[in-house]
Amino acid sequence: MNLGFLETEHGSFELPVFMPVGTKGTVKAMPPSMLKELNVKIILGNTYHLYLRPGHKLVEKMGGLHKFMNWDGPILTDSGGFQVFSLNHLRKIEEEGVEFRSHLDGSKHYLTPELSIEIQNSLGSDIKMVFDECPAYGSDKNYLNKSLELTSRWALRCKKEWTRLGSNGKLFGIVQGGMYPDLREKSLDQLLEIGFDGYALGGFSVGEPKNEMYETLCATMEKISSRAITAPVYLMGVGEPEDILFAVKYGVKMFDCVIPTRNARNGGLYTFKGKMSIKQAKYIDDPLPLEDGCDCYTCKNFSRAYLRHLYMSGELLSYYLNTVHNLRFFMRFMENLRNSIKNDDYDNFYADFLNNYNKGSV
Amino acid sequence: MNLGFLETEHGSFELPVFMPVGTKGTVKAMPPSMLKELNVKIILGNTYHLYLRPGHKLVEKMGGLHKFMNWDGPILTDSGGFQVFSLNHLRKIEEEGVEFRSHLDGSKHYLTPELSIEIQNSLGSDIKMVFDECPAYGSDKNYLNKSLELTSRWALRCKKEWTRLGSNGKLFGIVQGGMYPDLREKSLDQLLEIGFDGYALGGFSVGEPKNEMYETLCATMEKISSRAITAPVYLMGVGEPEDILFAVKYGVKMFDCVIPTRNARNGGLYTFKGKMSIKQAKYIDDPLPLEDGCDCYTCKNFSRAYLRHLYMSGELLSYYLNTVHNLRFFMRFMENLRNSIKNDDYDNFYADFLNNYNKGSV
Repeated sequence: MNLGFLETEHGSFELPVFMPVGTKGTVKAMPPSMLKELNVKIILGNTYHLYLRPGHKLVEKMGGLHKFMNWDGPILTDSGGFQVFSLNHLRKIEEEGVEFRSHLDGSKHYLTPELSIEIQNSLGSDIKMVFDECPAYGSDKNYLNKSLELTSRWALRCKKEWTRLGSNGKLFGIVQGGMYPDLREKSLDQLLEIGFDGYALGGFSVGEPKNEMYETLCATMEKISSRAITAPVYLMGVGEPEDILFAVKYGVKMFDCVIPTRNARNGGLYTFKGKMSIKQAKYIDDPLPLEDGCDCYTCKNFSRAYLRHLYMSGELLSYYLNTVHNLRFFMRFMENLRNSIKNDDYDNFYADFLNNYNKGSV
Repeated sequence: MNLGFLETEHGSFELPVFMPVGTKGTVKAMPPSMLKELNVKIILGNTYHLYLRPGHKLVEKMGGLHKFMNWDGPILTDSGGFQVFSLNHLRKIEEEGVEFRSHLDGSKHYLTPELSIEIQNSLGSDIKMVFDECPAYGSDKNYLNKSLELTSRWALRCKKEWTRLGSNGKLFGIVQGGMYPDLREKSLDQLLEIGFDGYALGGFSVGEPKNEMYETLCATMEKISSRAITAPVYLMGVGEPEDILFAVKYGVKMFDCVIPTRNARNGGLYTFKGKMSIKQAKYIDDPLPLEDGCDCYTCKNFSRAYLRHLYMSGELLSYYLNTVHNLRFFMRFMENLRNSIKNDDYDNFYADFLNNYNKGSV
């Protein structure tokens, strides 16, 4: 096992890396100065949301997404594909692109591979994703096969548009194929033929059982390994620490997920001794910090009793302090994970982490 | 005109001072480290809210309000009187105290002058307020007269309980009497006879027209001046910058109000050129900071366009950044105000401020 390294115009960082999600031009509740303090290396922005509001042309006029949101580190933007396809009854898929209605006001829009790249270019992201179709879990094999072929044709159109616009930043392809290893392999090879700066695995964490995800992931990563790809592999929308540990073992280098931030807002907090729900009555007079040994602002300054009070009172500071801790937990987890790879000690780290984490003795 | 100075166990500060409101053990959306950065000198906590949730006994067990919320500066707590009386149909006033039902769960409680002091003592506040009756604006003179007599008897009981518990911190009396200067004078003299560390003016900013407030305030402050009181005078629940300017001219030294924090959450922002509503369409592509020359984190790092986007998207960061700016505006306003007194230039400051502020040319 070995670390990776990714260079962008807004900074370089070691891999594996976890990217907090900043959907609408902000990682929810976090001033960007705090993201720096938490050792966040790169964040993710959502093309679909920013296209609808405030609009990519406005963001471009304001100097791009980095300047707009005052985050001078790297940004990866998704393609809008996943969001558009999850609109279900609100969209229609064609060879040319996808017609959909905005979840905000019902207005009609038409997203194509070219427009997705144009939007991402206006946002000025460091890593851009191709526009892909992300079929629902459980789609039949015949549909998945046709879908990945469409995704490959769109990937080629994205590459052409990205090149035409000046090859700004990096462009990643997205491997689809559902839970079928042979389809995953086919998708991978079609993308390799086009050639990308990185390869993402789409269509995971969309409702499939964990064992299916693990099996397909494993089979797909074996195909990737056998082709000696040096570009980083990115598992989109994943995930929990245990999923990251599994995927890293098989070679995945990049992750993103809303769980640290979303769970924080619901009072769900991560520690190396397992997850805790701050609303539980047992914390009512608990003077301890959330997690012993954590170096975040929340743990250094506040008790579980206070954090429970803020949560139960619906106070805004609750979102802030919980998010600070959860993001710092994910960053510390990734720091430890990278160190274990450096020290050639990953298997022990993996086992020790799970052993402590699953005790749930918070 | 001259400055004042107030010493507490948690720090000293010059007067006049403005106290941001931290109702439930948090100034909404603000980590206490940011309050320090904003040059906040003292905050206010609400006895009624903290009594109901999480409960003063719990706060005491956790080391007091300062430690609980990790604010090591001075705290003033109100008596709970104002909140209880604003419950209207949910309370019953007697000589002994007030029976009321919780706005949270309808549970029945009985608040007395002694219990109010006990709660404030458990919270460990630096400045405690006597339990007073705050009659509605427009109450008839006969009722107001009886009410202020009750408030005086309660003030005496508070003083006794405060002394019995060890005279912790300072204790302020509250002058009532509605819009009748003779009643205000009577209330004042009854409180002076008991003797307090400071004198608050209650029953203002409760719906009365501005001119009535100004006239009564003026008349009351003249009575206070004629008695050569050196203890600070505190105008409760006030207010807008123009109200503060007026009151300071007549000798008021302390203020609190929810407007900087509440308006911030509604997109209402203060600048020395007047108030602005960040939701206005004209800010959609405005690259300027909220206020030119402001040294707050928000103004140093973000554009009006971004702040409008956050507000329109309902993002949590909007509350944070807007609150930072509004509190910093109030702190800068008070810094400038104190400087003008130091420089014997208050009248010019007053006129210049209003001149710029009322132009509304943001």
